Amino acid sequence: MFDPVEKLKEYVRHASVSADPKFIDGIAGAQQFLLTLFKEMGLQAEAVPTERHAVIVAKREGDPRWPHVIIYGHYDVQPPDPLTQWKTPPFEPTIQGERIYGRGTADNKGPLMVHITAVARLLEKNPDLPLRITFVVEGEEEIGSKNFKTFLLENKHRLNGDFIYMSDNGILSPDQMIVTVGLRGMLALEIELTGPKSDLHSGMHGGVLMNPLQALAELAASLHTPDGRVNIPGFYDKVVEPEPWEREQLKKANLDLKSYQEFLGISKFHTPPGYTPFEAIRFQPTLEFNGFTGGYQGEGTKTVIPSKASCKITCRLVPNQTPGNTADTVINAIKARCPEGVTMTITRQHDATPYVVIPPDRSNTPKDQSPALANCFRALEKAGTEVWGKPPIYLREGGSVGLLADLKEVLGLDAVMMGLFLPEDNLHAPNESFHLGVMKKGIETSERVLAQLAKG
Amino acid sequence: MFDPVEKLKEYVRHASVSADPKFIDGIAGAQQFLLTLFKEMGLQAEAVPTERHAVIVAKREGDPRWPHVIIYGHYDVQPPDPLTQWKTPPFEPTIQGERIYGRGTADNKGPLMVHITAVARLLEKNPDLPLRITFVVEGEEEIGSKNFKTFLLENKHRLNGDFIYMSDNGILSPDQMIVTVGLRGMLALEIELTGPKSDLHSGMHGGVLMNPLQALAELAASLHTPDGRVNIPGFYDKVVEPEPWEREQLKKANLDLKSYQEFLGISKFHTPPGYTPFEAIRFQPTLEFNGFTGGYQGEGTKTVIPSKASCKITCRLVPNQTPGNTADTVINAIKARCPEGVTMTITRQHDATPYVVIPPDRSNTPKDQSPALANCFRALEKAGTEVWGKPPIYLREGGSVGLLADLKEVLGLDAVMMGLFLPEDNLHAPNESFHLGVMKKGIETSERVLAQLAKG
Repeated sequence: MFDPVEKLKEYVRHASVSADPKFIDGIAGAQQFLLTLFKEMGLQAEAVPTERHAVIVAKREGDPRWPHVIIYGHYDVQPPDPLTQWKTPPFEPTIQGERIYGRGTADNKGPLMVHITAVARLLEKNPDLPLRITFVVEGEEEIGSKNFKTFLLENKHRLNGDFIYMSDNGILSPDQMIVTVGLRGMLALEIELTGPKSDLHSGMHGGVLMNPLQALAELAASLHTPDGRVNIPGFYDKVVEPEPWEREQLKKANLDLKSYQEFLGISKFHTPPGYTPFEAIRFQPTLEFNGFTGGYQGEGTKTVIPSKASCKITCRLVPNQTPGNTADTVINAIKARCPEGVTMTITRQHDATPYVVIPPDRSNTPKDQSPALANCFRALEKAGTEVWGKPPIYLREGGSVGLLADLKEVLGLDAVMMGLFLPEDNLHAPNESFHLGVMKKGIETSERVLAQLAKG
Repeated sequence: MFDPVEKLKEYVRHASVSADPKFIDGIAGAQQFLLTLFKEMGLQAEAVPTERHAVIVAKREGDPRWPHVIIYGHYDVQPPDPLTQWKTPPFEPTIQGERIYGRGTADNKGPLMVHITAVARLLEKNPDLPLRITFVVEGEEEIGSKNFKTFLLENKHRLNGDFIYMSDNGILSPDQMIVTVGLRGMLALEIELTGPKSDLHSGMHGGVLMNPLQALAELAASLHTPDGRVNIPGFYDKVVEPEPWEREQLKKANLDLKSYQEFLGISKFHTPPGYTPFEAIRFQPTLEFNGFTGGYQGEGTKTVIPSKASCKITCRLVPNQTPGNTADTVINAIKARCPEGVTMTITRQHDATPYVVIPPDRSNTPKDQSPALANCFRALEKAGTEVWGKPPIYLREGGSVGLLADLKEVLGLDAVMMGLFLPEDNLHAPNESFHLGVMKKGIETSERVLAQLAKG
């Protein structure tokens, strides 16, 4: 019998951090783990090389008339720092109460294991299941899936599925299933300011030049208005307001602001006017600072004026913004504000285009929606209602999965996204965990969805 | 024959970084080096314990009618980071051209070695030299000399000198001797801002809360006016304008703005109105950012909203500002500007009171100036003129040596400060070095000064 929790533990032990070359053994380990597991399930599995981390492709072929589902996941994880804030070792999965702790448990190793388990169990019960299945598990999601589009283009011939099925998205409580129908896009920038040609003694030279840290503060402080909006002319020009049914779905989720505030641990919200916090993270773009670096970082005092200061920024984008139609607006505004006395370089990091898929029977469902996609949405609504006790809610969420736009563009396929991680799962943060109760319901739901799809 | 360069090399190899406990062996090594050296010279030397790093005291006793000079220095050095910017290993002294490279070569191991060499040579020539000499070499100058005042209070009985003689101050070219007659004081603060209770995913939660990095930027940007002044009400209230003779001395130095700008490597100066850059660093206070830290510091992107952001600040103070009369003004202004949605803690780091000593025969020389102090100033003027070919210039400088105020307060003694390091020596920065030609002239000058003092 396939034990998903034991398998997940084994999977999480591979420290498959894609951003940092020193974790290359963890990347290799996670790849090998998946190849072995898929082969044990009777699938044809191979590691398809890319310029950086290979994509694991595992196929169950069959009658061409059978539906063909492509299940997407990623085996790479975020860096574990700051390490000192972890209560358990990030790569030694630990169960406490109804949660399993470890880097990648929720993003995305646990959710992928949900679908692997569903497939394993279905095939165990019915080795002749009339369903074609292709797992596509990439290793660069956390660094922007830079090589994924090339992979799709080169392997298009064997990715001739009917739709994408995946879980790299969230839910809001363990009792309510959420189907994600949109994700924000992303524009990532690194700004470096250079002042004096080398670090200077702040006593001997302080008071005669623009300190790059001050220049950084002035620049960064200029990028928002006091009401929390992004202070860049034209930034909001392409933003499309959500449809009424989307706001209604959000209301159905019956979210509690006070609990959310307590979860965040903040004294007050700071949300652009006209949007509740729950609307803002779904329907509004952002410009967020992810890191400031400059000068002395150690204990105590070092009386230095640094030569350089830098800042990492990510903008979250919403339809119809794209990295293409937003980057110049942002970069030009930042360049125009470069304080005198310092020079600036801006480096673009990875991008993501916002993504929206509309379920069947909505005011704005495209008339040409594929029957297979509609079929999967309906199977998920039925299975979800049975397993979770009430119908799923259809929501956009605030994160970014840029490869969805690539899948749509290259394969022409939309995605059905069953949410599986919770806000308190601490994605991208210390003490990441995955809820074992949700995992169990996810497996049960996914097994029913796939069984239903096999019926055609 | 005493070889000062070989001795300096040996001294610099001890990585005596006082700020960071991992360099404790370097501290111990530097102490032992000095004890051995002083004993070889026939002095009574001992390490006097303090709460952290011992003070090395070495005495040459004698007839109580002989003048008694106290020579101050410090054996501790700044941290060497950023290590990647060093062209030679910081603790492996390397001679290139007319310079010796290594952490501490200029601040303060080289200058102290100048006076040690002068004493060694004088005693070699005249073992009966009628001069009492006490070396006081501390190990916490770079971390604010926190225990030095206590040391002075506890050892006052054996520090009954006539004045302090020292070189922990700068010159502006290898051809012009400078006597330092004032130093700026310092107020050091660390500000930490806390937003959400833990790091958050910037996709899932971006757009609803004040990012501590943004709060830091807004706060820091508010602390200066666009013209380069500190934007804190009351900050300048105690500042005393320099005397006319001070501005005249500075003019005599004939400093070249263009060369200074090239040395700094900046496109333009950013100096408070009414002051040249050379005046600003001597006569004006500052509020300088020494470090920003927050969020992801590594390569690439991490889509995080950090829980905390922090900032290191040092204010340089000028007479009659003191840490005591300035700290509340600064701290209260910063607290009042704490952005909504974050909490703030401010930690005071080490302080220094500004110091001024006035040479004999100036418009503002105190009427009760001690004859021994005036004698030393005159000996230095004579020896300096002979060795350097022209009279010294008397200048305040921008750095801080807070212990001068302690020496004055506890021992009642003023200091005669012969400058020995150059702007291009890179103090507190990578590739620190010391000019061997200046070292040689410094030894020659100091030997003549001490010989003259012995004559009474």
